[in-house]
Amino acid sequence: MSTSPRQLKFGAILTGVGTAQNEWLHPEIPGDASIDIDWYRQQAQQAEAAKFDLIFIVDSPYITPDSAPHYLNRLEPLTLLSAVAGATSKIGLVATLTTSYTEPFNVARQFASLDLISGGRAGWNVVTTGLEGAAGNFGREQHIDHTERYRRAGEHLQVVQGLWDSYEDDAFVRDKQSGVFLDPQRQHRLDHQGEFFSVTGPLNIARSPQGQPVIFQAGISESGRNLAANFAEGIFAGVDNFEDARAYYQDIKQRTAAAGRNPDHVTILPGIAPIIADTDEQAQAIDRERHGELDLHKALVQLGRPFNYHDFSQYPLDEPFPDLGDLGSNGYRGHAEHIKHVAREQGLTLRQAAWRFAAPFSNFVGSPKTVADEIERWFVEGAVDGFNIRVGAPGEFARFTNEVLPLLRERGLFRSEYSHSTLRGHLGLPVPVNRHSAARVAQAVTVGEHLQAVGA
Amino acid sequence: MSTSPRQLKFGAILTGVGTAQNEWLHPEIPGDASIDIDWYRQQAQQAEAAKFDLIFIVDSPYITPDSAPHYLNRLEPLTLLSAVAGATSKIGLVATLTTSYTEPFNVARQFASLDLISGGRAGWNVVTTGLEGAAGNFGREQHIDHTERYRRAGEHLQVVQGLWDSYEDDAFVRDKQSGVFLDPQRQHRLDHQGEFFSVTGPLNIARSPQGQPVIFQAGISESGRNLAANFAEGIFAGVDNFEDARAYYQDIKQRTAAAGRNPDHVTILPGIAPIIADTDEQAQAIDRERHGELDLHKALVQLGRPFNYHDFSQYPLDEPFPDLGDLGSNGYRGHAEHIKHVAREQGLTLRQAAWRFAAPFSNFVGSPKTVADEIERWFVEGAVDGFNIRVGAPGEFARFTNEVLPLLRERGLFRSEYSHSTLRGHLGLPVPVNRHSAARVAQAVTVGEHLQAVGA
Ligand SMILES: Cc1cc2nc3c(=O)[nH]c(=O)nc-3n(C[C@H](O)[C@H](O)[C@H](O)COP(=O)(O)O)c2cc1C
Ligand SMILES: Cc1cc2nc3c(=O)[nH]c(=O)nc-3n(C[C@H](O)[C@H](O)[C@H](O)COP(=O)(O)O)c2cc1C
Repeated sequence: MSTSPRQLKFGAILTGVGTAQNEWLHPEIPGDASIDIDWYRQQAQQAEAAKFDLIFIVDSPYITPDSAPHYLNRLEPLTLLSAVAGATSKIGLVATLTTSYTEPFNVARQFASLDLISGGRAGWNVVTTGLEGAAGNFGREQHIDHTERYRRAGEHLQVVQGLWDSYEDDAFVRDKQSGVFLDPQRQHRLDHQGEFFSVTGPLNIARSPQGQPVIFQAGISESGRNLAANFAEGIFAGVDNFEDARAYYQDIKQRTAAAGRNPDHVTILPGIAPIIADTDEQAQAIDRERHGELDLHKALVQLGRPFNYHDFSQYPLDEPFPDLGDLGSNGYRGHAEHIKHVAREQGLTLRQAAWRFAAPFSNFVGSPKTVADEIERWFVEGAVDGFNIRVGAPGEFARFTNEVLPLLRERGLFRSEYSHSTLRGHLGLPVPVNRHSAARVAQAVTVGEHLQAVGA
Repeated sequence: MSTSPRQLKFGAILTGVGTAQNEWLHPEIPGDASIDIDWYRQQAQQAEAAKFDLIFIVDSPYITPDSAPHYLNRLEPLTLLSAVAGATSKIGLVATLTTSYTEPFNVARQFASLDLISGGRAGWNVVTTGLEGAAGNFGREQHIDHTERYRRAGEHLQVVQGLWDSYEDDAFVRDKQSGVFLDPQRQHRLDHQGEFFSVTGPLNIARSPQGQPVIFQAGISESGRNLAANFAEGIFAGVDNFEDARAYYQDIKQRTAAAGRNPDHVTILPGIAPIIADTDEQAQAIDRERHGELDLHKALVQLGRPFNYHDFSQYPLDEPFPDLGDLGSNGYRGHAEHIKHVAREQGLTLRQAAWRFAAPFSNFVGSPKTVADEIERWFVEGAVDGFNIRVGAPGEFARFTNEVLPLLRERGLFRSEYSHSTLRGHLGLPVPVNRHSAARVAQAVTVGEHLQAVGA
């Protein structure tokens, strides 16, 4: 067994009954999986036993009666992961939360708290919320405009990361002899005043063993990619074929370097839902059968989601994909543009587009060897750093962990044991130095002062 | 062993290193207790083994370098309790959260999620935040005015409770045969439009086994008491002597009845920190010693907290408590007024007031029998429904659970086993009927329709 210096990273996307319309029909999946904390605990343990880097919880704060089963009724990501923390000990815990309808002080506190509760395993998937209807749940007549959403996201993140550094790592003296609990010099206000937020701080919680929670992001649009370049340490990528994946990967790595950051410090993980069987033919048959089971009405609803739940049933099915103008540009813009683009380029009818986007990722359908080969190819040829695996039925996930992962281990591409117990450790990310400690070190002019400044 | 029909209720206030300035010096309390989830899990288990009704987490979103140790660095209540849920199975989990700086949609989701995660054990202690500095952490130049804060709290609560009823209990059909997941008739929008909030809903989460989380409150002022009368199902009362407790108890029960609610459906629990020793003399000696250890500077800081961290060190110590005008009326108004009132009535000097309010509750200092007698007296004479016990060192808490509770059990005043596994069950509160189901039942005109409406 050789060991490649570059190692694959794997996330497990846990979505209970599934974000597609018909996943919940699987006989192994209980109808209440999305509100059953034990279901999540067990899947997290299954992923941890397979030495996955992280589990990933998606989120959105708006539903209609037509929403897919998982969206209709599910646990909130931070409380969910906090409850999963105690049932696991190594695996990273990444929760999605919007910057559009939250207060940075509350967000900073909750993620910092999850980070301490889990011993340094928290990650935040920063989203701006694509569903325009969300506005109505937060006292707004209109969803915040796409460009403003991303400006707000950038500032929100800046505030949150600033609050996370409120205490230097040696702030708490806790000396019972002298009665000194805190060194007040090591507690810092933020005093942020910006376009969207003004926040004095300090935050009332210390840093965790990994320094700060890891920032994930999933932007596709220009604004989304720029936010990623400046902040993201992990990306949940929405690409569904090798060429797009490679182009996206190279674009993000370049933007990250251009933003003055180390491109190795952003881990790009497209989401995939592999279908694995003993032979390629059997796997393809399962895939075809799944497509056959798809209900066209539901596929059209799902297609409409990135376009603000646009009603596609009004168009003829077997004519070219309709011209939608700039519909979707204020919602999931990146998704919406991608769908329009693919439909145009490939000359899809509406029916074809509905099928295509209801069950994508046909690259990862086959025998364990075929799937492992494809994973290796994407990894080695610079299209990904790993994958976020969509976990549905436990039996199907077990085929991935028990039959595909061993092949990748044999090839030296994936760990057999954890060598760290923080999410940053797994992803090879450095622990960010507290900005105030760094400033003190930078200001120290003599060697003696320097040593004192770093606490030596 | 007789059994009184009316049973004492007990909560355990877990505050890690303690909200008083010097509690963390106790040799049994680790300096990082407030950020150690295992510390909370163990104390929750200790309380559950003693058949307590609930654990209680206080909170506030603002600190200065002078704040007491627990405030400086602590876990956030919802993530904390979610992590404790898995380590317990019966005890109620009550988290404090402000209505002044949160969005009802997010609050409703997180409590509903904790409620499902814990199998129906969640409670929300609704506060409006007394510390004026909190405003600066949420983009406001000024803390919201006291009266407006309470109006906002009432509307916030109305929205949250409305969102909690988004789904009727039979909304999720989950029939894999027919492919029907949701009965859309049983999903309800809220469409609330009010003074502070407009929220369409529906909330994306179902009700728990207890229907809705239990509402706690701790108001002392006129507005606070009225909010309690309308909404509170539990009260964490801030009274420190029998006469005040009885007056408060009777006032709240009367207001609750006047608001058209059953006064038995609000459980009033003052917070106390008993000091128990083999004999009364030994307990009193410990109490005196504790007072002697108090640092006057810290006692003055603590005294200043309800007055928006007012600096009391500027006044002469041994002259009458200073005239503060209406200072504190926009912060912890009830607390502030109480302190001014007591200082005036009892003619306290500043030094005496500092001691008095730094370590109150001298009624519960004594042998196990003395403390049990006092608890029984307050309970039987209509001053309380039970107590919220401030848990500090595990050894001291064990004296309460192992030596005081058995006496109360012998007298038939407290349970030996749980008879329920939800917080509502413990407190004798009914499961609130979903408002939409109730409306349907009310509208049904024939017997057949009625049976159909209730799902029979
Ligand atoms: C794989 C993937 C997962 C995503 N998960 C979420 C999510 O859980 N919640 C959410 O609001 N948005 C999610 N998004 C949406 C993105 O945050 C982003 O809004 C969307 O991709 C549109 O791109 P743009 O915002 O750059 O225009 C996801 C996107 C992708 C590609
Ligand atoms: C025993 C007790 C516990 C309280 N706990 C909290 C708390 O954890 N967080 C908070 O912001 N306020 C807390 N409060 C403050 C009350 O919510 C309330 O603001 C305060 O008692 C002042 O009364 P008023 O608001 O009616 O003027 C507590 C009050 C009491 C009496």
